[in-house]
Amino acid sequence: MSRLKRIAIDVMGGDFGPTVVVPAALKSLAVHPDLSLVLVGDQPRIEELLGHTATRLRQRLEIVHTAVSIDDNTRPEAVLRKYKDSSMYLAVDMVRDARVDACVSAGNTGALLLTGRHLLKTVPGISKPAIIASIPVPTSNHRCYLLDVGANIDTQAPQLVEFAVMGAVLAASTCPHTPRIGLLNIGQEEHKGTVQIKLAAQALEKLDSLNYIGFIEGNEIFDGKADVIVCDGFAGNVVIKSSAGVVSVIKNVMQECAGRDWLRRLCAWLSAPLLLDLNTQIDPARFNGASLLGLQGIIVKSHGNARTEGFFHAIEQAVREVMDNVPDRIASRMASLAPETGAAL
Amino acid sequence: MSRLKRIAIDVMGGDFGPTVVVPAALKSLAVHPDLSLVLVGDQPRIEELLGHTATRLRQRLEIVHTAVSIDDNTRPEAVLRKYKDSSMYLAVDMVRDARVDACVSAGNTGALLLTGRHLLKTVPGISKPAIIASIPVPTSNHRCYLLDVGANIDTQAPQLVEFAVMGAVLAASTCPHTPRIGLLNIGQEEHKGTVQIKLAAQALEKLDSLNYIGFIEGNEIFDGKADVIVCDGFAGNVVIKSSAGVVSVIKNVMQECAGRDWLRRLCAWLSAPLLLDLNTQIDPARFNGASLLGLQGIIVKSHGNARTEGFFHAIEQAVREVMDNVPDRIASRMASLAPETGAAL
Repeated sequence: MSRLKRIAIDVMGGDFGPTVVVPAALKSLAVHPDLSLVLVGDQPRIEELLGHTATRLRQRLEIVHTAVSIDDNTRPEAVLRKYKDSSMYLAVDMVRDARVDACVSAGNTGALLLTGRHLLKTVPGISKPAIIASIPVPTSNHRCYLLDVGANIDTQAPQLVEFAVMGAVLAASTCPHTPRIGLLNIGQEEHKGTVQIKLAAQALEKLDSLNYIGFIEGNEIFDGKADVIVCDGFAGNVVIKSSAGVVSVIKNVMQECAGRDWLRRLCAWLSAPLLLDLNTQIDPARFNGASLLGLQGIIVKSHGNARTEGFFHAIEQAVREVMDNVPDRIASRMASLAPETGAAL
Repeated sequence: MSRLKRIAIDVMGGDFGPTVVVPAALKSLAVHPDLSLVLVGDQPRIEELLGHTATRLRQRLEIVHTAVSIDDNTRPEAVLRKYKDSSMYLAVDMVRDARVDACVSAGNTGALLLTGRHLLKTVPGISKPAIIASIPVPTSNHRCYLLDVGANIDTQAPQLVEFAVMGAVLAASTCPHTPRIGLLNIGQEEHKGTVQIKLAAQALEKLDSLNYIGFIEGNEIFDGKADVIVCDGFAGNVVIKSSAGVVSVIKNVMQECAGRDWLRRLCAWLSAPLLLDLNTQIDPARFNGASLLGLQGIIVKSHGNARTEGFFHAIEQAVREVMDNVPDRIASRMASLAPETGAAL
């Protein structure tokens, strides 16, 4: 058996805290016999939720107690000053100390980014970390990665190129071919888009080691045309949030219609298998777990409102990145590209 | 009977040209007894499609012949130099000459914007025209307006404020209350967003005559929280395109699932009324017709791939704007706000 993978979990983050995180952690331990977890948070509460967990799982679990946690209203900067004993800070600090291989948190995104950057530093060649989200592509049955989705706004061309490199590294583990990289834009034509997008496009075209395929428009994101889509964090953030909004509106409309009269109630009951298929293919829980890429260590951010299944998938994402050694691979890719990018930008 | 409303139609624009536009025009004439239309395009083709149109419709129809049209590959600037006899240019020119009250085109958006700006000029106080799209809000059963969706990128704060004013004027005609105006952002907190968004938020808060309600996140666009959502044209463009992408993916997944086996085929057949309800509520055709706001004249842009029903709704949008006298109302609103905005920005 290979060396145990070790991941720290911020138990106190997210809308539901330990009630969601502890069961998700146990599920991950059951799925991965070579995984051990450090649960960082309120020990009595964790012990209570662990209950009579089987010894074979319990022995791969360590608890690090802290009663301090931060919430979504905490200003990110405050974490570095006043919350060094919070579950989030302690979990990231364990990555820095190499006591664990990665950490997962459903807490305040801004605080997690700032803590990550402060404690882990960026990979040489990467100016700032980015948040990468994975998107279901039902037709091709694999995922597409979109970055940045909110860590950086007013992004300049060199940073967009960094995103392309980081995305390519992450996508390589789930993508059956060399990841195709697209640049999000408002049209296909060369003259479309901001100055920074046009500069980034010119640079990406010159990087032979990246499989850059050109501009991608909003409607093509879910088409499976690209495996990595690069964009400014503002655009990426509104794309993932508005897409989620559309899915939830459609579900609501169908539910509302389904309850309207007995005929529609019957129809809804009869069409349940279809809706189940749909849910399976675009289930947000399956795609939970956004990585903070570009740091010298692995941090995965779970959605704050994730339930057990969703948080489990965020841990899965961390496990994959540990196996793939993502930060080292980003570093070596950046180093090998340095002469090329220098010339291209 | 009130004076006839008169609208010029670019018959040659869009993916399907006259085959879609002529039947849509006839439907509009049938629906509005006080409407007359000028069809600008290839006369023989138009006559052929008109066939044996009833005299009561035919007498409210004029044809202006031109064999020249532009396509989506035409560079916008070329229109002003080489295509002054194109159906699009002639239709917009009729608005300038006050021969018609508005025009509708499904042609090249960039060319339409440039022609509109060149021939009609902007309303005093408006620096550049914006494209406004209307979005279905199934829960509240009315529409929400999003602007800009692609005419302006790298938008500055004063322009975002102009968008808010123009959106409020347009929304007033379909909105049962004073339009609630939101600013698209990546979070609710004051410190989130670009410098320009923060400046625009500060200015909008000071304008008492606008019902500004604060930041709106991507997932809230379809919630009915706001009647007008203001954003940079890049963000707006990716939002509407990616949302349309999600809807089409969901339809495809359900169709694909529905064909998988006999049980699912039966389910799909039985659940048809539900899907029909869904289609009715979020049907893109019903929401076709994006206005080019801020010009001294009314131009409505139909989606290039609109079918007859969609193009009909674009004409409907033009009819509404003629009735509401939108350009004049924007001008007077800008004039009355001038002292306030001067102080706010």
